[in-house]
Amino acid sequence: MSSASLDEMIAALKCLPGIGQKSAQRMALHLLERDRDGARRIAETIEKALASVRHCRRCRNFADTELCDICGDPARDPALLCVVETPADVLAVEASAAYRGRYFVLLGRLSPLDGYGPEELGLADLEDMIESGDIGEIILATSATVEGDITAQYIADFAARHEVGCSRLARGIPLGGELEFVDGGTLSRALSGRQKIE
Amino acid sequence: MSSASLDEMIAALKCLPGIGQKSAQRMALHLLERDRDGARRIAETIEKALASVRHCRRCRNFADTELCDICGDPARDPALLCVVETPADVLAVEASAAYRGRYFVLLGRLSPLDGYGPEELGLADLEDMIESGDIGEIILATSATVEGDITAQYIADFAARHEVGCSRLARGIPLGGELEFVDGGTLSRALSGRQKIE
Repeated sequence: MSSASLDEMIAALKCLPGIGQKSAQRMALHLLERDRDGARRIAETIEKALASVRHCRRCRNFADTELCDICGDPARDPALLCVVETPADVLAVEASAAYRGRYFVLLGRLSPLDGYGPEELGLADLEDMIESGDIGEIILATSATVEGDITAQYIADFAARHEVGCSRLARGIPLGGELEFVDGGTLSRALSGRQKIE
Repeated sequence: MSSASLDEMIAALKCLPGIGQKSAQRMALHLLERDRDGARRIAETIEKALASVRHCRRCRNFADTELCDICGDPARDPALLCVVETPADVLAVEASAAYRGRYFVLLGRLSPLDGYGPEELGLADLEDMIESGDIGEIILATSATVEGDITAQYIADFAARHEVGCSRLARGIPLGGELEFVDGGTLSRALSGRQKIE
């Protein structure tokens, strides 16, 4: 490239997930040619987020303050707890607009080989929460993978010892899913979990 | 989202070309969760590029100094000029490692309806360069579109009046291209431009 600072910017943009040399080039040239205001905004908001974003003391989600907006919202049911793996999962559940309780974000899932044990997932905090008796129901919304299932089972076992009810998200055919294209495993879960028509 | 500064960062990342809400979310969460150094680097290099990147006085490509590295390189043939539409095209030609002359970057192509006339493309500067008599050959590497062809023709007409030789990039089957998948227009150009085997 003809400009060293442009080269550096292209190299830095490759830190973005899924962005290689070609896309980084396209982004850098677009920002410099056509959207310098946008470029300034990106730089400023990243600096600001780096300075102010931390993890919520209670749910471990991202927050600007000690307690995140969801944990601090009095309209949220404090007795209902949804356990998810990542902040992105919180966004997904929030987007469904079907949940009014609080969250607990594991920031991972049990996977000892990858270095994710109970400590990394903050399970001691979660267990304190369960022991305190404030939680009436736990919805285990970890992912539908082997590790997600093991993580859910681990938490369900602990909750059972403290007589707190646990549920797992329903498995089945996704909305708009055509049987023809649904895999065998999903179909088998949908069959075994079939629901009576009242 | 649970954090206002994270929301702002996600909104800003949507300024990147081809990045919508979902991708911006994934990028922001990735940077904050797993690559804070990378995030810092992106912000810093953008600020630096915004402050220092300008257009080269001679070729209009991006440069940190008044004259870009290519125009300032004494090893480059000053009599050979390659006319391209964008800085990205310079990168593409440079990547071929088959060219050792200088460039002229139009920063667009003739398209009066989109507001790109001779003035926006700096054609007066290009004509001064041609008139000065320093240029021995011009390679017109504008894109293979109607506007690209018109732009090339416009420059070729001017160059012809000053008796400077002009050529256009060869059209034909791309390397590794299979006839079956080549469109009719390309094939017709490849046929009419067929080359004798010596």
